[in-house]
Amino acid sequence: METIAFIGLGNMGAPMANNLLSAGLKVQVFDLVTELAKPLAAAGAKVCDSIEQVVMGADAVVTMLPAGEHVTAVYLGGNGCQGIVNYVGESTVLIDSSTIDPKSARLVAAKAKERGIDFADAPVSGGVTGASAGTLTFIVGGSEQAFIRAECVLKHMGKNIFHAGDSGCGQMGKICNNLMLGILMAGTCEALNLGIANGLDPKVLSNIMLQSSGRNWALELYNPCPGVMENAPASNHYQPGFMSKLMLKDLGLGLEAATQSQSSVPMGALARNLYAFHNMNGNQELDFSSLFEFYRSEQP
Amino acid sequence: METIAFIGLGNMGAPMANNLLSAGLKVQVFDLVTELAKPLAAAGAKVCDSIEQVVMGADAVVTMLPAGEHVTAVYLGGNGCQGIVNYVGESTVLIDSSTIDPKSARLVAAKAKERGIDFADAPVSGGVTGASAGTLTFIVGGSEQAFIRAECVLKHMGKNIFHAGDSGCGQMGKICNNLMLGILMAGTCEALNLGIANGLDPKVLSNIMLQSSGRNWALELYNPCPGVMENAPASNHYQPGFMSKLMLKDLGLGLEAATQSQSSVPMGALARNLYAFHNMNGNQELDFSSLFEFYRSEQP
Amino acid sequence: METIAFIGLGNMGAPMANNLLSAGLKVQVFDLVTELAKPLAAAGAKVCDSIEQVVMGADAVVTMLPAGEHVTAVYLGGNGCQGIVNYVGESTVLIDSSTIDPKSARLVAAKAKERGIDFADAPVSGGVTGASAGTLTFIVGGSEQAFIRAECVLKHMGKNIFHAGDSGCGQMGKICNNLMLGILMAGTCEALNLGIANGLDPKVLSNIMLQSSGRNWALELYNPCPGVMENAPASNHYQPGFMSKLMLKDLGLGLEAATQSQSSVPMGALARNLYAFHNMNGNQELDFSSLFEFYRSEQP
Amino acid sequence: METIAFIGLGNMGAPMANNLLSAGLKVQVFDLVTELAKPLAAAGAKVCDSIEQVVMGADAVVTMLPAGEHVTAVYLGGNGCQGIVNYVGESTVLIDSSTIDPKSARLVAAKAKERGIDFADAPVSGGVTGASAGTLTFIVGGSEQAFIRAECVLKHMGKNIFHAGDSGCGQMGKICNNLMLGILMAGTCEALNLGIANGLDPKVLSNIMLQSSGRNWALELYNPCPGVMENAPASNHYQPGFMSKLMLKDLGLGLEAATQSQSSVPMGALARNLYAFHNMNGNQELDFSSLFEFYRSEQP
Repeated sequence: METIAFIGLGNMGAPMANNLLSAGLKVQVFDLVTELAKPLAAAGAKVCDSIEQVVMGADAVVTMLPAGEHVTAVYLGGNGCQGIVNYVGESTVLIDSSTIDPKSARLVAAKAKERGIDFADAPVSGGVTGASAGTLTFIVGGSEQAFIRAECVLKHMGKNIFHAGDSGCGQMGKICNNLMLGILMAGTCEALNLGIANGLDPKVLSNIMLQSSGRNWALELYNPCPGVMENAPASNHYQPGFMSKLMLKDLGLGLEAATQSQSSVPMGALARNLYAFHNMNGNQELDFSSLFEFYRSEQP
Repeated sequence: METIAFIGLGNMGAPMANNLLSAGLKVQVFDLVTELAKPLAAAGAKVCDSIEQVVMGADAVVTMLPAGEHVTAVYLGGNGCQGIVNYVGESTVLIDSSTIDPKSARLVAAKAKERGIDFADAPVSGGVTGASAGTLTFIVGGSEQAFIRAECVLKHMGKNIFHAGDSGCGQMGKICNNLMLGILMAGTCEALNLGIANGLDPKVLSNIMLQSSGRNWALELYNPCPGVMENAPASNHYQPGFMSKLMLKDLGLGLEAATQSQSSVPMGALARNLYAFHNMNGNQELDFSSLFEFYRSEQP
Repeated sequence: METIAFIGLGNMGAPMANNLLSAGLKVQVFDLVTELAKPLAAAGAKVCDSIEQVVMGADAVVTMLPAGEHVTAVYLGGNGCQGIVNYVGESTVLIDSSTIDPKSARLVAAKAKERGIDFADAPVSGGVTGASAGTLTFIVGGSEQAFIRAECVLKHMGKNIFHAGDSGCGQMGKICNNLMLGILMAGTCEALNLGIANGLDPKVLSNIMLQSSGRNWALELYNPCPGVMENAPASNHYQPGFMSKLMLKDLGLGLEAATQSQSSVPMGALARNLYAFHNMNGNQELDFSSLFEFYRSEQP
Repeated sequence: METIAFIGLGNMGAPMANNLLSAGLKVQVFDLVTELAKPLAAAGAKVCDSIEQVVMGADAVVTMLPAGEHVTAVYLGGNGCQGIVNYVGESTVLIDSSTIDPKSARLVAAKAKERGIDFADAPVSGGVTGASAGTLTFIVGGSEQAFIRAECVLKHMGKNIFHAGDSGCGQMGKICNNLMLGILMAGTCEALNLGIANGLDPKVLSNIMLQSSGRNWALELYNPCPGVMENAPASNHYQPGFMSKLMLKDLGLGLEAATQSQSSVPMGALARNLYAFHNMNGNQELDFSSLFEFYRSEQP
């Protein structure tokens, strides 16, 4: 496999495409904002003028788009797109790394399958840092064959590549993980704030919980209380990192999935609503650990 | 320091006292249920008939009691007790390892201080297994001196001994940790169930989250889904472990502390209420990871 | 206006169409389940074999369908439908009384407007009883003209007809009301159960709250505690009334709307999740006041 | 019955005592803040220098104090008080109109009963306006005899006097009502805000819900959206009315009661935590309907 088409060159897409180039692959790129393709051109990518053009001759297509509606338009058609699935060669493997609702992912996969084309939903975790370093985690949904073919491409952009199950399971796996993460972060903010309000030092309390049954990813790598962890966004004015608005989006996807499967997700729903309050106050672009400020008591 | 008085010989107290004996200390024991003292007598403990007697000649007193009202009665008097604080020698160090409200702990510490006696609140985490193995974690509140003196005793029963801060901070540290733990467990049950209801295999999903940002203590050491983790209570009919009723009690202490400090603890409050629902259905004595059953969809 | 096409003859649709007949209007009916049209035929309705046929010659079309996907298919096409909006005469007024997401309602309205056709979203409240008695409440969204024309039809089926605003506002008004209702019912179950668990008689407590600031629709007309109110579903084995599964659906629509507008709805989200738990235990078809049983303590 | 001792002359107590004077009763008053007694002296009350003195010769004692700790001190002794229960004449009826925890109310009642003295817990609802107008609601706990005797006094200060049950049931009834009220207000703020964010006019939506199943006390008499209801605190810069800090206190009492009875109160607990967030931002003294501002979207 040698030629990769890459569509969507934002904060995540650009460094990902760059890593494909660094791995020695032939990379063709496209973004509606043509400006974004320039640095990649300098790095050796072929810049294309349309989706139709970028896909031409590609062995694999990778997309990195903002939301489900963009993914369905690009793959199935609509909003001025003809739909990659309708004209791409049958031997091409399609990989969508956007974070979207599993229902849309399953719809694209089904349409691709009708033409015998392999499609994998492969959302990522790891943020801009992971995208640049090539250490992303990919959570992949699709057939065994789609997974194996996708893996050959994804391995140049990430470290951990999981096969979560059939089509849509990649999205679902990411959604479950980020629902958990939202709960971890809200809970960590809450426990730390409760301790502080009752006379505990946040460093001491963090240390106790890290070595006890309160240990969790947010506490360990992303302590939300300023000053506790030098390298965490909390100690750098909550510069992201992973923005509050993205956490709100992902928790919203969790609620949508739960509504469809009639599952009960009270903790995730509450975390989602805390982020909705927090973002309403102008914190959308801050790191998601800034939820700590929402909890902070102003009492002396 | 050679002679230790130990009051309260239940599931936790008995193995703790036993470890003091194993360490070569002289141990005097008392429990209202005289039957409970017998195995310790066989192991070399001196069995006493009253609190007054057990305290006599002791360099340190350790108490392990069910709730705040017992602790205040034993130390300050009431309910037929004269109150250890009122008659014990001034050089004795008093250590309460019960899990109670910080307010009561501070009250006992203040009364002890009036007579110049060192008191440490030192609740434990680690459960019956940790108590038997001598690997408990102690979270200690009190003056520097009280902490140092308590540590000399506690080190024979535990592995990690934290100085959380002044009087009451031991209790508060434990409360914060267990509030966090209740949130972790509820969240983990929820994320796994959401995944299962949407077609994911719980083992695969657990593995993905463990290597991603959803990682937490409950998922790592205490997976609540039967069959995922061989040694977890979930795979053994939810035999405890740490009982649901104890989690409900600890989350209740968290709410009480939050009410007093006017802190906001929505996630912990919700977790508490989920446990209240769960326990209401007769699950008090099951391991707290059995909350998974409360979430489990019965739909085909 | 004389000829009305009525599509969807379920528990609600059938008695609604019947009231149009009773008012002396000419009524043409259609349902995929042909059986459902028979009683209406006996009452004087013209039974049609297809949507295309039922719409022919109608001055107004009324639809009463289960969910948004059916509404978009029937009006816009898809799933074997050609889309009423594409072929109906321009002078026909289209009225959808289904409860669906506002987004779909706005989409249908926009497509109708392109052809100059008036469309009103007009969901109902009042249940099967209100449908039979002709006392439904209609909450209507659309232009002033669409509202006035719809009102001429709806007045034969209901008592209160509100103009909530532009297209979609009918659905949104109903969603807000039912979000409130879900909160009222959950809160009422909770307050009554808390009182009972603490020694209060539910009749006495209900009476106190009814005459105080706890008064609300659920408490006043729909007391969820068996035996307090003779005619309430609670005193008749929770026979509906308004089914738990419908409340779950409506609260899900509320969450969906909140996700799209990035609003915070923690109370409604929690109520939704309580209903998800409750329904999971096989209570979908019971009246929504049966949530009381979910709260009921089994302790002695 | 002719002579009434009144202890606690704050915002509520002063107008209540005044109404007793207006009814022609002999009233003796006491407050730690001596200043507060002056207006009552002018109105004919006998001002006393101590609790012991004010109680002397009284047929009934009425107390109106901030919290449970004050009530237990005044009646049972402690904090410089000798405890009314210990020295008052046996024929005196004791009435506590403070809002406190039921446990403390039951404790005072039990101690009074030991000496054969009637005690009634009789918290009020109706606020300062009701206190001045003599239209308060009293929710009374105690024996039939205590209730009948208390009623003879309370009828001069209120309109509705409920016998909720045995000792503590007055407090419990009020707690349940105010838990319900907190839920009503939070839910009403939420439903209105959701509607506004989706294009509905708050007056129109309020009107729809008032005539539908969303009707409730908060919406009907206390609309939290500025401009909808002319006389509501919302239209007067949220001047109280009933302060946010008092709602937080009452919801805290609800959680405390639920913790003791192991009841599940997720909706009330969430409402409590929303008020904790709201108050943290400096809104304690605003009317409790100001929670609307906490929900208000800042989006255009």
